[in-house]
Amino acid sequence: MTGMVLYGYFRSSAAWRVRIAMNLKQLKPELDIRHLQKNEQRAEDYLELNPEGLVPALKLENGPVLSQSLAIVEYLDETYPDPPLLPQDALPRARVRSLALAVACDIHPLNNLRVLLYLEHELGVSNGQRSDWYTHWVHEGFRSAETTAAAHDGPFVFGESVTFADACLIPQIYNARRFAVPLDDFPRLVAVHAHCRGLPAFQAAAPESQPDAG
Amino acid sequence: MTGMVLYGYFRSSAAWRVRIAMNLKQLKPELDIRHLQKNEQRAEDYLELNPEGLVPALKLENGPVLSQSLAIVEYLDETYPDPPLLPQDALPRARVRSLALAVACDIHPLNNLRVLLYLEHELGVSNGQRSDWYTHWVHEGFRSAETTAAAHDGPFVFGESVTFADACLIPQIYNARRFAVPLDDFPRLVAVHAHCRGLPAFQAAAPESQPDAG
Repeated sequence: MTGMVLYGYFRSSAAWRVRIAMNLKQLKPELDIRHLQKNEQRAEDYLELNPEGLVPALKLENGPVLSQSLAIVEYLDETYPDPPLLPQDALPRARVRSLALAVACDIHPLNNLRVLLYLEHELGVSNGQRSDWYTHWVHEGFRSAETTAAAHDGPFVFGESVTFADACLIPQIYNARRFAVPLDDFPRLVAVHAHCRGLPAFQAAAPESQPDAG
Repeated sequence: MTGMVLYGYFRSSAAWRVRIAMNLKQLKPELDIRHLQKNEQRAEDYLELNPEGLVPALKLENGPVLSQSLAIVEYLDETYPDPPLLPQDALPRARVRSLALAVACDIHPLNNLRVLLYLEHELGVSNGQRSDWYTHWVHEGFRSAETTAAAHDGPFVFGESVTFADACLIPQIYNARRFAVPLDDFPRLVAVHAHCRGLPAFQAAAPESQPDAG
């Protein structure tokens, strides 16, 4: 154990990104589950730790709590640099961050649970409209991600080394499948997904491997 | 001139973040305007530069094009470190990135032009529903941002030094005002906004100072 506590939920793809990064770095946090369907991320005790009321959050061994998956992953990469999840040089670092952010800013925020619930409950959209919405933003984001990924060979999005970008993309591809989004136009992303899903660090981070799955 | 080209639009708050960072670092890119209301970010020549079809993008002097505002700002901070826009140590760096990402992932993606147009054209929501949607996500995000900002004194969100977080928050607060979102519950954010708006680097980056404003 590392003395760290990771607050998450098995189906949160933002929490899943952090699980992948921690597994790759062989960090084993204690897991504290906040069930999103039961709104446990809005409980008083959790809001004191993370006023955002979102998962994931990472409590460090000496007490501070970090929020936002990409800020957590950057922190882990700076403090536990082996293996690095970003390249060394500024330009390739920017490319990896850009793809990670394309998922984290342009796909996931539009399709996560709280937004789907808002569409359903506040705007009264139909199941079909919700499904079209989901597919639309995945396709918008994956189109350029595929272009980027197709410029590289190798098991990971950016070639031979695993990066932040894989930690963001794998959960997003899994979720797209779960929502039956057609992925025929993204063969390179699908291939990277198939490869990564077979690796122990990704397997152990997957929703179905979590104690709260079910 | 730096030989760099910044592709943007005066009202894009993501482009605005990059303008603030570049002004703080005294980098003067050539500006190339992509008018979002005219869908110019989807023109063939632009998609070749940035397959995402979004602004901003930054063309470096030697040719490569970077996308995603936060990846661009990280790149600039690594290659033009004076003044730094992130603290030195890992923990405060994580805190600054977390607040920047809370804006960039949890508020802005839900309220930007392409999403508002989807709500209107595809889902047929009323003006009132669209306004409630906008306000809802701003308030959700600003609640925790206010808590974070209120823990610091000084002209900027994190105290005495300007950071990524200010570059993300100032455009978001300006936009909230433009959409008449009540900000009474966020006095510290409003105070930081008032201060930053008076600084030359922020003034020159503002929408109304851009050549395409109108």
